[in-house]
Amino acid sequence: MELKVQRIQIKAGKYKVVLNTEDARELGVRGGDRVQLKDHSYLTAIVETGDLIEKGTVGVYQECCDKLGDVCPLTLNILPTSRPSSVGFIKKMMDHQKLTQEEIYQIVQDVVRDNLTEIEMSAFVTSSYIHGMTSDEIEWLTRAMIDTGEKIEFNTHPIMDKHSIGGVPGNKISLLVVPIVAANGLLIPKTSSRAITGAAGTADLMEVLAPVEFSADEIKSITEKVGGVIAWGGATNIAPADDKLIRAEYPLSIDPRCQLLASIMAKKGAVGADCVVIDIPVGSGTKVPTVEEGKKLARDLIELGERLGMSVECAMTYGASPVGRTIGPAIEVREALKVLETMQGPNSLIEKSTALAGILLEMGGVAAKGRGKELAMETLRSGKALNKLKEIIEAQGGNPNITHTDIKPGEHRAELASPADGYVIEFDNKRIVEIARIAGAPIDKGAGVWIHRKKGETVKKGEPLITIFADKSWKLTNALKSAEKMSPIIVEGMLLERVQTFKVF
Amino acid sequence: MELKVQRIQIKAGKYKVVLNTEDARELGVRGGDRVQLKDHSYLTAIVETGDLIEKGTVGVYQECCDKLGDVCPLTLNILPTSRPSSVGFIKKMMDHQKLTQEEIYQIVQDVVRDNLTEIEMSAFVTSSYIHGMTSDEIEWLTRAMIDTGEKIEFNTHPIMDKHSIGGVPGNKISLLVVPIVAANGLLIPKTSSRAITGAAGTADLMEVLAPVEFSADEIKSITEKVGGVIAWGGATNIAPADDKLIRAEYPLSIDPRCQLLASIMAKKGAVGADCVVIDIPVGSGTKVPTVEEGKKLARDLIELGERLGMSVECAMTYGASPVGRTIGPAIEVREALKVLETMQGPNSLIEKSTALAGILLEMGGVAAKGRGKELAMETLRSGKALNKLKEIIEAQGGNPNITHTDIKPGEHRAELASPADGYVIEFDNKRIVEIARIAGAPIDKGAGVWIHRKKGETVKKGEPLITIFADKSWKLTNALKSAEKMSPIIVEGMLLERVQTFKVF
Repeated sequence: MELKVQRIQIKAGKYKVVLNTEDARELGVRGGDRVQLKDHSYLTAIVETGDLIEKGTVGVYQECCDKLGDVCPLTLNILPTSRPSSVGFIKKMMDHQKLTQEEIYQIVQDVVRDNLTEIEMSAFVTSSYIHGMTSDEIEWLTRAMIDTGEKIEFNTHPIMDKHSIGGVPGNKISLLVVPIVAANGLLIPKTSSRAITGAAGTADLMEVLAPVEFSADEIKSITEKVGGVIAWGGATNIAPADDKLIRAEYPLSIDPRCQLLASIMAKKGAVGADCVVIDIPVGSGTKVPTVEEGKKLARDLIELGERLGMSVECAMTYGASPVGRTIGPAIEVREALKVLETMQGPNSLIEKSTALAGILLEMGGVAAKGRGKELAMETLRSGKALNKLKEIIEAQGGNPNITHTDIKPGEHRAELASPADGYVIEFDNKRIVEIARIAGAPIDKGAGVWIHRKKGETVKKGEPLITIFADKSWKLTNALKSAEKMSPIIVEGMLLERVQTFKVF
Repeated sequence: MELKVQRIQIKAGKYKVVLNTEDARELGVRGGDRVQLKDHSYLTAIVETGDLIEKGTVGVYQECCDKLGDVCPLTLNILPTSRPSSVGFIKKMMDHQKLTQEEIYQIVQDVVRDNLTEIEMSAFVTSSYIHGMTSDEIEWLTRAMIDTGEKIEFNTHPIMDKHSIGGVPGNKISLLVVPIVAANGLLIPKTSSRAITGAAGTADLMEVLAPVEFSADEIKSITEKVGGVIAWGGATNIAPADDKLIRAEYPLSIDPRCQLLASIMAKKGAVGADCVVIDIPVGSGTKVPTVEEGKKLARDLIELGERLGMSVECAMTYGASPVGRTIGPAIEVREALKVLETMQGPNSLIEKSTALAGILLEMGGVAAKGRGKELAMETLRSGKALNKLKEIIEAQGGNPNITHTDIKPGEHRAELASPADGYVIEFDNKRIVEIARIAGAPIDKGAGVWIHRKKGETVKKGEPLITIFADKSWKLTNALKSAEKMSPIIVEGMLLERVQTFKVF
């Protein structure tokens, strides 16, 4: 069917066209069906139908226009065509049938190429969530995620890497682990994420110190030059399927185990990692509530690593309480830098960073078994880690002379004071993160929450429990209001709720 | 956040707005999150993000514009807000937890109000498909589907109704069943569907004879006037959730059992049916491959009917072969009318129609137990059914004097000839329907396939197996090409494939 082209200057996120409802009926297609745009290297597009597009006209979204080239044609010959074969494979998953390696590759490739509709993407992640995948399938999924993106191949080995499962606020340890490892002569090309539901991802943190958006080639050359990098994975084309799957999972608040495993290991595999340490925070509020489940996850990660030719070690860490006392980009970086400069800072941060760095030092063969932590601590104490971080900052294009006092929290701040004398008996990680986000984190770098009292600590009435920082005063107001309405910290003896009687005498 | 409004004259199918990616980050929302459009009766919209919309601007799709009223405001105050609670209930379904009646009602209401994104809709239908629902949940789903739409309440009872599970081509029996039942003094307000993947739904057929788009009130008054109606359900607001769920299921080629049950019974419940006969075609190619499964489906339908206060009887029918010899709107109607006028026509059509009508005559108390079919046959033979159909056609605004010879198949026609002498050993229903659709059915009324030979019948080389009809010559060409490429009918002794050797001597 020959139709007049009407350009729609909106990105649909897919190759999409809109047909008038009558034209669609005439063609025998419905919303979600596919059509071929003939005479144009057989571009396949997803159909949307509507009445606002005139009969005889096809609305062409931006992505299709781009693909059709500079001179978008005046008319297009539209033909119905079948759905991608991967839709049938997703149906197999729904029916709990095992997939072959080729079928999984096809699905991942169509995910990366934006060939699947949101309905189909959702059916895929929902089925993955409900049925799970076999170890074979998870391996194939991981390999497909690696192979459908860019890969880095280093000439020197071993390549070290580190990942945190997440779910614990204030987890700024990569800022210490990467320079400690690199300072000992090992290569560690760390790609990391920005916060999606958290207050600051490692990429958000590093961005306070230097640019984080690099191509795979740049990540390779920076790593070869200074031993390490802390880059935002989203700027690369490494395992691009991952982001697209997350976009379908996020609205459903799900994180299917098979995709969690594949997502982690694909990113490690794509940078050519040989030795990987994985931090599994355990405790209420994290992704892994019990030690039992942590062990299960660790076994799965180690097995998947073996299948892919990577050595994996997992460390279960205490995740019920934040790491350090800061939540939010600038103040987290300030806290981490201060440790690197002075060894002064929260024990939870120093202990966790050196423990994980130590594992990598042992895996990389630069520390004897059982002596990694000691070497990590020494690397920190001697200032070698600080110097290495400065080199990394400089290589990424930041100012290497920055010190922790240069990093200023947001100019607007407010304290939440304790309403009573007593112990902190409840500490709500999720609420702390929520407040930091309302205050503007992670997008406003100065926004965040400084924690004065953690669980079990004593406080006097009127003393601050937290300080909220914000770059914008209206965000501070909202964050404080939220904190006052439902306090993230409960002090023993604190009045939780006042139930009034309206007795008439 | 106060943003300048940019109207987008496209229907998104939902209340949707587009935010610039940076504005979205600033607000802390991502694609699929919700925002409130403040100062405008707190309209909630789904967020899409993109770079083609300028920073400081919000793109507002047609549905939101419509809701905001004639004078779309110049700026809007946008606030993040939480997802509808039904998204949490869908998550419960994914986790295989039972839902309460209120939770199911909430989901159905949000489906009807277009409050759910495609990702959420797909998660709902995928979970329903994988986990199924309990009998309680199916009852609640059905009730919710009835209560979120229009209902018809008749003063006279009983109200009769009929449904076919579908999957068998050429099933034009409603054109006979409805007038037979109505001619015997019973009320039968039949709402029916248009073909989605088939060649002709009952609504597509009736439309050859008369208009089929009526409101619930009109359906009621036509039924009260002449005893019956054959209307398109899609024009009413009866059980509107059904269509919206189908729109999410169609792209996945799934028909979750719980939704199949609820869909059928909600439409019957909404028109106030007391007695319902359900035709369950059984056989390869239908929705119910075995008698065992047919019985299970029948039990489920009867139980659900009991819960809703309806008498339900099911008839398992032969579904492996088309009913009659015609597929496609005009020629099916011609075949049905000829039976009504002359009692001449395929046995499969006459037997099936009178059997099902007979069950309704017994259920409605106008025929003694075991005598319904006899009465149905008599009603047909006497011409009473034909007269009743003419009354119905007239009441729906069609020409009551139409006869079967007035109905012309498409002017373009081609035959597929048998390549050999022999028996028909394979007959592919799905291929026949596909060919009819390529020829233009159901949208081109004259398009379709006339079947000359069914399974087991003999044919001589060169005699026609099928005749293809089309309103448009290019569609005929495509249909014939498709039929020749893969024949829907295999004759014994026919060469299936020629495997050539390229032996060099």
